[in-house]
Amino acid sequence: MAEMPVTFGNVLKACERIAPYLNRTPVFTCSTADEIAGRKLFFKAENLQKTGSFKARGALNAILLAKERKPTVAGIVTHSSGNHGQAVAWASKRVNLPSYVVVPAMAPASKKTAIRGYGAQLIECGSKPSDRYEACDKLQAEKDLEMVPPFDHPDVIAGQGSIAVELLDQVPDLDAIMVPISGGGMASGIAIAAKHMKPDIKVFVVSPQGKLLTDCFKSGQRLWPNPPEYLNTTADAIRLQQLGHLTFNILSQLAEKDAFEMSDEEMIQGVKFIMHRMKLVVEMAAGASVAAVLSDRMKSLDPAIKKVGVILCGGNIDLDNLPW
Amino acid sequence: MAEMPVTFGNVLKACERIAPYLNRTPVFTCSTADEIAGRKLFFKAENLQKTGSFKARGALNAILLAKERKPTVAGIVTHSSGNHGQAVAWASKRVNLPSYVVVPAMAPASKKTAIRGYGAQLIECGSKPSDRYEACDKLQAEKDLEMVPPFDHPDVIAGQGSIAVELLDQVPDLDAIMVPISGGGMASGIAIAAKHMKPDIKVFVVSPQGKLLTDCFKSGQRLWPNPPEYLNTTADAIRLQQLGHLTFNILSQLAEKDAFEMSDEEMIQGVKFIMHRMKLVVEMAAGASVAAVLSDRMKSLDPAIKKVGVILCGGNIDLDNLPW
Repeated sequence: MAEMPVTFGNVLKACERIAPYLNRTPVFTCSTADEIAGRKLFFKAENLQKTGSFKARGALNAILLAKERKPTVAGIVTHSSGNHGQAVAWASKRVNLPSYVVVPAMAPASKKTAIRGYGAQLIECGSKPSDRYEACDKLQAEKDLEMVPPFDHPDVIAGQGSIAVELLDQVPDLDAIMVPISGGGMASGIAIAAKHMKPDIKVFVVSPQGKLLTDCFKSGQRLWPNPPEYLNTTADAIRLQQLGHLTFNILSQLAEKDAFEMSDEEMIQGVKFIMHRMKLVVEMAAGASVAAVLSDRMKSLDPAIKKVGVILCGGNIDLDNLPW
Repeated sequence: MAEMPVTFGNVLKACERIAPYLNRTPVFTCSTADEIAGRKLFFKAENLQKTGSFKARGALNAILLAKERKPTVAGIVTHSSGNHGQAVAWASKRVNLPSYVVVPAMAPASKKTAIRGYGAQLIECGSKPSDRYEACDKLQAEKDLEMVPPFDHPDVIAGQGSIAVELLDQVPDLDAIMVPISGGGMASGIAIAAKHMKPDIKVFVVSPQGKLLTDCFKSGQRLWPNPPEYLNTTADAIRLQQLGHLTFNILSQLAEKDAFEMSDEEMIQGVKFIMHRMKLVVEMAAGASVAAVLSDRMKSLDPAIKKVGVILCGGNIDLDNLPW
């Protein structure tokens, strides 16, 4: 196995570093879901995390480390109209740093309001991915800011890994974990921590359709078309087609090669199942991992996989525009 | 104070009796809500209770006691198209008794499905309140069943009181509790337990508009028109205008005389606040108590009321027909 850009030691230090600020999120069970899946399921409620998603973990770890390494850092910058933007805004405020979040001008007003609500300065840019990077670079240079990217960064990955450390403390004998995936930061952190703590555990990633992950993992090649594309899905938190470079390297080695791909309709049914049965509000990305464990393919998995963790990654869904 | 039909001792015994079957529901806090209310709020998540509402507590206590008193009891009967019907079905199954739930034929199919799903036999009746009672009486006589009414029964009230015992164990120094009210079973149980444990605590009841509770409490008279009417509200779990006879007697003595009355719009905003900020699915009745603590009247209450419990009574809301 090639050397990893993030070690289990990094994850453990991240756990310690961020614990004073964050929720240890609870784990829920549901006998109806167990019957459908034919296994015991353990739902990790990251929708109850600060800012409504797991993103607070990685953002906070990266920001605390930035300040540790350079105590005079003037502030934090990132680009994201979604959960990562809220997480950076929230985490920066916790450590008394100003934050600047670059958002496409066309992003929904509700998302802009949420990011401002957590205390960030919002910088609007054009709609091309390159517009975001240019705006970030300009701000970073002008104001001497630290950039905290959404997933392809060792400190972000280490922070997300804290999910697995908590989950395996709460349910030590898990045989597998289902993780929704977009850029791959959460899946990478979870895989590094979980495989260290329990080498036989399987980490399955779950995405919307069209992500080509199984082919990429099996060939070990980045088969995605360039420039990077968005997937055609209503699951707005997991729309990226490509993994990052660090995350692809990590997950090619540690994740199961057969990825789950779910349709919008399956993810909607996953969200409704959790809202109806568990009374938890979850977003479409969380619906993806729920859909996976309720799917026919789940039933056909190795019966030795008896206990399965399911990451409910977030709860930031627009209640006025539910996708059903 | 007149003698109570339910004692704190009854409530404590109920706690012990039902604990092996039920969830000790968690308490959530929310700094944004605290800022709006100007006090510390503690939300008791009965939406995470078995069957999705607090009703499981009272129904189970009554059914366990029925079996204790008459081990040969043939089964349980009740009338309810809502949370109490589901609770009786669920609780009967836990103690291996058949259950019969009388439901108006015109009740929504989703509610009938839920009651059947918990294992009850569904008996359809006409739409008048008297149709329900007649159907119940007939079944009870024919099959030698025990009737478990939705609220006006000492064992049901004692079971609901367990909410307050738990909540004051979780947050011992509460100054007040906000309780949604329909027939008054939950408010009565909570008032009996809370006032015993902490005599200075205030129990505020919250209802949809038109319930006339403040006038009834202040005059000590049942001022409601007869035959009993339903309130004009979308909060389907708290539509009754009248309290029961036991519950009116209890609450006239123990509840604050100034009841809160909330509009549908305020309850909707309450539900959306909890779903958006706390990521919990709650029903409109729970939205009532949330709306009360977020209201202008709350701001003007005695500043000595610093810590307030808020009962999120249930989470059974129709996701395909949300009231906004």
